[in-house]
Amino acid sequence: SQSLKFGEDWIFLFLLGISMATISFGLDVVTSKCQRANLWAYDELEGHRHLQYFSWTFYHVALTVGSAAAAKYISAQAAGSGIPELKVALRGVVLHEFFTLRTFVAKLLGVVCCLAGGSTIFLGKVGPFVHMATILATLLGKVMVWYTGATENPSRKYELLIAGAAVGVACCFVAPVGGVLFGVEVTGTHFAVRDYWRGFFAATCAALTFRLLAVLNNTRETVAVLFRSSWRVEFPYDLPELLSYAILGSFCGGLCCVYLFCHRNMLMVFQNKPKINEFMKNNRILYAGAVSLVLASLTFPHGVGQYIGARLSMKELLETFFNNMTWGREEASLGSATPQPLNLTHDDANWLHWTQQDLSVLEMLVLFLVAKFFMLLAATTMVVPAGYFLPVFVYGAALGRLYGELMAKIFPNGIITDGIRMQVTPAGYALAGAAAYSGAVTQTISTALLTFELTGQMSHILPVLVAVLIANAISQRLQPSFFDGIILVKK
Amino acid sequence: SQSLKFGEDWIFLFLLGISMATISFGLDVVTSKCQRANLWAYDELEGHRHLQYFSWTFYHVALTVGSAAAAKYISAQAAGSGIPELKVALRGVVLHEFFTLRTFVAKLLGVVCCLAGGSTIFLGKVGPFVHMATILATLLGKVMVWYTGATENPSRKYELLIAGAAVGVACCFVAPVGGVLFGVEVTGTHFAVRDYWRGFFAATCAALTFRLLAVLNNTRETVAVLFRSSWRVEFPYDLPELLSYAILGSFCGGLCCVYLFCHRNMLMVFQNKPKINEFMKNNRILYAGAVSLVLASLTFPHGVGQYIGARLSMKELLETFFNNMTWGREEASLGSATPQPLNLTHDDANWLHWTQQDLSVLEMLVLFLVAKFFMLLAATTMVVPAGYFLPVFVYGAALGRLYGELMAKIFPNGIITDGIRMQVTPAGYALAGAAAYSGAVTQTISTALLTFELTGQMSHILPVLVAVLIANAISQRLQPSFFDGIILVKK
Repeated sequence: SQSLKFGEDWIFLFLLGISMATISFGLDVVTSKCQRANLWAYDELEGHRHLQYFSWTFYHVALTVGSAAAAKYISAQAAGSGIPELKVALRGVVLHEFFTLRTFVAKLLGVVCCLAGGSTIFLGKVGPFVHMATILATLLGKVMVWYTGATENPSRKYELLIAGAAVGVACCFVAPVGGVLFGVEVTGTHFAVRDYWRGFFAATCAALTFRLLAVLNNTRETVAVLFRSSWRVEFPYDLPELLSYAILGSFCGGLCCVYLFCHRNMLMVFQNKPKINEFMKNNRILYAGAVSLVLASLTFPHGVGQYIGARLSMKELLETFFNNMTWGREEASLGSATPQPLNLTHDDANWLHWTQQDLSVLEMLVLFLVAKFFMLLAATTMVVPAGYFLPVFVYGAALGRLYGELMAKIFPNGIITDGIRMQVTPAGYALAGAAAYSGAVTQTISTALLTFELTGQMSHILPVLVAVLIANAISQRLQPSFFDGIILVKK
Repeated sequence: SQSLKFGEDWIFLFLLGISMATISFGLDVVTSKCQRANLWAYDELEGHRHLQYFSWTFYHVALTVGSAAAAKYISAQAAGSGIPELKVALRGVVLHEFFTLRTFVAKLLGVVCCLAGGSTIFLGKVGPFVHMATILATLLGKVMVWYTGATENPSRKYELLIAGAAVGVACCFVAPVGGVLFGVEVTGTHFAVRDYWRGFFAATCAALTFRLLAVLNNTRETVAVLFRSSWRVEFPYDLPELLSYAILGSFCGGLCCVYLFCHRNMLMVFQNKPKINEFMKNNRILYAGAVSLVLASLTFPHGVGQYIGARLSMKELLETFFNNMTWGREEASLGSATPQPLNLTHDDANWLHWTQQDLSVLEMLVLFLVAKFFMLLAATTMVVPAGYFLPVFVYGAALGRLYGELMAKIFPNGIITDGIRMQVTPAGYALAGAAAYSGAVTQTISTALLTFELTGQMSHILPVLVAVLIANAISQRLQPSFFDGIILVKK
């Protein structure tokens, strides 16, 4: 019987991993099709500026309203990221309706709608996937208990939830190791080595399934290729650069504190002002529609949108930030030589969204950072099922990229140590920025591992860890984490 | 006061990290100098076969006797790896004299002697470094308590030990992430996210110091370069190859069970047969001398030694196994063309130790595996301060390399999927073998991360994780882990 139970556990984890990976993959396919359809319609209407505006905003408003409706009419528990509630649930608080199939369906529908909005709505999928994976773990656990006729075991339930959280993160990033650690850090305060093994197993099954599906679908997962050949493995960074990475870490930590402060106080206003609170309760869908109208107007590609990469999805934005060129230099050569380079593949060409006649790359990155700061704050006030990790991660990558491009501009000939000239690699700074900023917001350090798994390279392990630790130290001293802030406000 | 305490903790972790890294680095320099001196003396005596034999064996016997004497006359607690004892101590058992300066000194001396023996004595430094780091953590903690006048706090002591274990592993491999996780997995069953952050901070300090020292000493740490340019990042392995990695994992798991079974029963015989036990108690140094004489005779470079890479140190052995060539093919081209290739650098040339006139690469690897199996068993019976992780890691790498070379021989034109021909990469199998075998012996899975940090690449994350999980599943079902086995026998 003991032996049977052992086998059951692994079957359970296996099923959990493959089903979440399949859902994640399907969602990626659906949302990218929707985005392409929207861009196609937009381009077909070229010449009719008003129709284009109508089509662009209608697409985004309709999706956001759909998402808000799913949270309102199907299950109220589906709203938000789900991680703060999960954290509370793991500490023993019983949440009504939080782990039900109904909530799962609402969350899935809501997330599909949100993600199809690309980088306009600027929300992500990590939190919802963690929530959905824990729901699936609970439901699968109930089926297993019913099937084997055993009695329910509360400590086993805790293990299932931890494994679920690991699978949820691992599915989003195809990152088994970072997924497990991030899942643990973000939800718990203690964990057993036993649970950590379970999480690893389930997360590996999920990552494998994801990879297999990608091959079957003929879209080879290209996360490992974000950095191309010229990425230096032999001596990827210089010792003086470590200091520069540390400064980037403290920038990320400082900006993160500003963001956390604004976010918490804004939530507080929405919660405590009776009039606003009353209005929000009754007009969630209307409010979501209004906010998305503002956001979509901002990102309209013939308006401000052209300067903030509005036509790119979240994943494509990340790809451009992790791109292994020095944009400043490429831009200069583009201006002087051919206006349309022809020898670039589709993936490489995405970064050309960051070249415009009227603004330089640096100015566009600054504009992106300023706009997205307020757009993200606005997006988090909507009551829709969506994650807040991916936007923060993208934001950090942009911050790091800006810093890296500035460094490359200040030291155009690279930094010289021991007579060896080392070019500055802006992509390395983007990597460190993404890990440090998202780590500081969520107050975790496994974001460093996530970035390594995303890029398939660990050569920047020391600078990235330094940046993450410094950003975390600043953030943990001055502010509660993003998720703890939500818990504090909702208490 | 709370704020002061906060600062103190980080200062403590910082000091712990940099001092252990300095010790680790110094030890590496000293042992590599000793090894070079031994090889120099050996080569100077060329032509006098008997003198060479005398010099080779005398060097190794003297070192081992020195190591055994340190364990006998300075501190008996310094013998062995220290991890089983640490595991027991973390569960609350009070061990006499285990965390004292005297034990620290004995361990350090003993490890220097053992490691200077290169791959002949076939023992490592991970366990001793974990032990030494926890001693240093305890002593530093006492100094801090005395300095600030606070009272000792048992839960804080536990935290210090966990951080110490993380630093110990991180120092050996310059692997902050894998170090923390391996330290946790190998010593504990539960841990707090707080401790994990501490471990990360201390381990990052250690890794940074190690890197800085390497630069100051003009010996750039080359662990990141073990894989050279031709390593495929774009699509590093094929899906059918995943199955092949799974088979390698089960080989590793099976062989590991045989090894654990032999090791435990051999220890049992030494413990339970009154005559042997009595003899061992009184003649530890004599026994160590005898065993090392046998080992050194086996590895005599003009004898069997030439076929098992006796002139290479543990680190050089690893470098050759992770070497990004297909030896079988290179060997064939060496035989036909020039007998002495001239265009290889020193590091690259090390693999030529695996080419001989009378034996092929595959035969030599098989001989290496058979010889080292018994040599490691013999070495673990000596009562000297030494680690058992590194030899197991090297052994796994050899196993993986053999498997990979066989695969490359069976599929000389690579594996074809979707019309794309993929060459087999034996180095990838060596990586998976090292992680899977050492993971199975210690029953941990973070060995996968250690290999990624060693090589600076994560492109093989899925195959390596699959191999590690399968090897672990087999080993955990059938045998207690290496360290638990020692605890069981010593009870």
